[in-house]
Amino acid sequence: MPSTQLTFSSRDAHRTWLASQASLPAGFRVGTTRFEFMPREAPKPAKMTLTLITLDQPTPDFAAMFTRNAFPGAPIIVGRKRLDEPALGAIIVNNKISNVCAPGGVEASEQICAKAAALLGIAPTSVLPSSTGVIGWTLPVDAILNGLPAAAASLTASSILPAAEGIVTTDLYPKIRRADLGGGSIVGIAKGAGMIEPNLATMLVYILTDIAIPRAELRTMLARAVDVSFNTISIDSDTSTSDTVALVSSSKVPCSDKAAFEKALTQVCRDLAEDVVRNGEGVRHVIRVNVKGAPSREISRALGKAIVNAPLFKCAVAGNDPNVGRLVQAIGKHVGAHAPGLDLSRLSARIGGIEIFANGAFRLDPTKETALVAHLKGAELYASAPTKDGVFAPPVDFPPHERCVEIEVDLANGAGECTVFGGDLTHEYVSENADYRS
Amino acid sequence: MPSTQLTFSSRDAHRTWLASQASLPAGFRVGTTRFEFMPREAPKPAKMTLTLITLDQPTPDFAAMFTRNAFPGAPIIVGRKRLDEPALGAIIVNNKISNVCAPGGVEASEQICAKAAALLGIAPTSVLPSSTGVIGWTLPVDAILNGLPAAAASLTASSILPAAEGIVTTDLYPKIRRADLGGGSIVGIAKGAGMIEPNLATMLVYILTDIAIPRAELRTMLARAVDVSFNTISIDSDTSTSDTVALVSSSKVPCSDKAAFEKALTQVCRDLAEDVVRNGEGVRHVIRVNVKGAPSREISRALGKAIVNAPLFKCAVAGNDPNVGRLVQAIGKHVGAHAPGLDLSRLSARIGGIEIFANGAFRLDPTKETALVAHLKGAELYASAPTKDGVFAPPVDFPPHERCVEIEVDLANGAGECTVFGGDLTHEYVSENADYRS
Repeated sequence: MPSTQLTFSSRDAHRTWLASQASLPAGFRVGTTRFEFMPREAPKPAKMTLTLITLDQPTPDFAAMFTRNAFPGAPIIVGRKRLDEPALGAIIVNNKISNVCAPGGVEASEQICAKAAALLGIAPTSVLPSSTGVIGWTLPVDAILNGLPAAAASLTASSILPAAEGIVTTDLYPKIRRADLGGGSIVGIAKGAGMIEPNLATMLVYILTDIAIPRAELRTMLARAVDVSFNTISIDSDTSTSDTVALVSSSKVPCSDKAAFEKALTQVCRDLAEDVVRNGEGVRHVIRVNVKGAPSREISRALGKAIVNAPLFKCAVAGNDPNVGRLVQAIGKHVGAHAPGLDLSRLSARIGGIEIFANGAFRLDPTKETALVAHLKGAELYASAPTKDGVFAPPVDFPPHERCVEIEVDLANGAGECTVFGGDLTHEYVSENADYRS
Repeated sequence: MPSTQLTFSSRDAHRTWLASQASLPAGFRVGTTRFEFMPREAPKPAKMTLTLITLDQPTPDFAAMFTRNAFPGAPIIVGRKRLDEPALGAIIVNNKISNVCAPGGVEASEQICAKAAALLGIAPTSVLPSSTGVIGWTLPVDAILNGLPAAAASLTASSILPAAEGIVTTDLYPKIRRADLGGGSIVGIAKGAGMIEPNLATMLVYILTDIAIPRAELRTMLARAVDVSFNTISIDSDTSTSDTVALVSSSKVPCSDKAAFEKALTQVCRDLAEDVVRNGEGVRHVIRVNVKGAPSREISRALGKAIVNAPLFKCAVAGNDPNVGRLVQAIGKHVGAHAPGLDLSRLSARIGGIEIFANGAFRLDPTKETALVAHLKGAELYASAPTKDGVFAPPVDFPPHERCVEIEVDLANGAGECTVFGGDLTHEYVSENADYRS
């Protein structure tokens, strides 16, 4: 559950709320610059934003987790090495092109870190790079090197909003979540809308805090928080080659309560993860699946993911169609393939609090059907309508509400429990990914 | 590869070809009847077709394989028991409603078998039942019992086409494949368009032969043929609760060459499996992925399935967009999650015969890009266009050609090889599964 149940009536109301969440923890600055360039592999110019996040003093207290995709991007390869460095002084992010399996990709990434470091007067190995966007294209290194001074010149300590806006690609809107505690704060931003089923971490997430937590504890806390947040979401079952979650402390404010810090960190991660789903490519319904009574937490999470990744069920949700048969199919497929010994005879399931399945059989009638349709319609983020050329695009670029399609599955087979977030499968998803060349 | 590369310029041309393939092996008859009924769970009447396949004499020589979904339909539960019976005399199939997790489902299925058996003068336990359609609704047993005499009265030994047409639901067209050999024949029909990633078998497939093969060998041959045909396809990664493949011999023609029989059987299965993908819900491109150089055949098949099930890559194919980054993402996701030790440094990949990836890096240029787009457009089955209310439906109900998007992945890591078939992800798929209630 998010810490708050927000609703927004307009883009302006959402942007006002974002601004109210955006003040930076002590010791950080952010800057951005945007420029046009000519991609080597494409016929026409493109635009890129560079985002720079800096610390007033390099810090030993940082943590980062990266994708488990077996083709990691060059910045991931560089980032894994940075974990062994004594300090982190800056993060440099570009959107539009991810730097994956491109000839000379690692060298390109290091070149950019070195130029940023020179501008900032810090060690090149204290800069963490990230790239996101088209996979298969080559980074425009010269254009990025030329753009870095403008990004450095724009650094400000007032708001993280320029960074939240700078790192996005197909995202519907920027995402900021914060927690204030003990005289300091934790502020996180996220980028991600497609190719989202993180395995260890999600697309690009940067969490900044001024509360002092030593490096080792910071890394343990981040791993635990990621496990119950970004590792429980899936928009389209695809795992990006560039997933990165970084947590950096400027250590300006002594920590008086580490348990409270970890709880707040976990809440910020959960809120951002749910935001990533809610603004996901083509997502018109967020689906929250709670699986309990499983032999283990791992089984409950895998089953929850199987449900939110089942295309036919996702399509039914998109159509406000409570096609419970497709839900049961998805459960049966997963258990048949991955946990064939599991006894399903006591399984029960609810949608929107309404019992639809118990003791091995459906529990349906026309009254329930009407209530289920109403539940699905109530969770819809916006109505779907094509333009006259048959292209579908979301009519909103803010989250109108935070209601979900609520699914509960009880296996009555143990104490394992997990809540998983996913989205529906819509014309807007297909239009985003087929009707336009990315 | 199919035994032939067919093209059809019209529905009539396709139907003429189907009729030319449809003559029944000796010893079989088929009959159908269609009627309207009122589903218990739905507000308006629906139509159902009953299809009866009979043998002139019950045969001990039959084989069947069923879904591995952990919520099997009642006919699957009954069918598994039938495998131990001494003989099979008939198959009874209904479409529109699958009989899955419905209270009293097994009893309903047995009642229908008993009535069919009485009409045919055979043992109730020699009747194999199948049901396909909406999951969650209850079979209209009385309406089916009332319809059985008409199905029995329509039995004919001339053509399997009425059965191929009778068993379909959302299929675009009926599917028949045959092989003639040694004075006899093997004739198969298939039903399946959505919820298709068979695990042991596919939706509904019935293969009839008059060539005499003893039961035990028939079962071994069917298992091997299914492994390289129906178990290598996926339309939407969903595994049906009702998948059934049955192979029945009337044993009228002595077998002179068992190896030739198995080869022909395997070809019929492969052709039907490819047909099931080609007529799949919303499929505008068939994607054929050959994975070789894998440590095992299982790994090559799993990786091929991961590619044809990756939503972002499927959307790109739908848009004739050779987004090779999404292909590499899909490979990396699968290997990272399921074979993390596998060395990908020698991986090479081709689309339409064009090298796009070698030795850990992309091999792309604008000339290749143009050729890749042409390859994708050449494999498109039909152009996509919405009606004025924004609903997308295929403009053809026949297969215009059998060209595929051809993907080759060489892991250079062993001798494991497998060819997998899948489809793209299109507006037509979403319209079929979200815009209409099933």
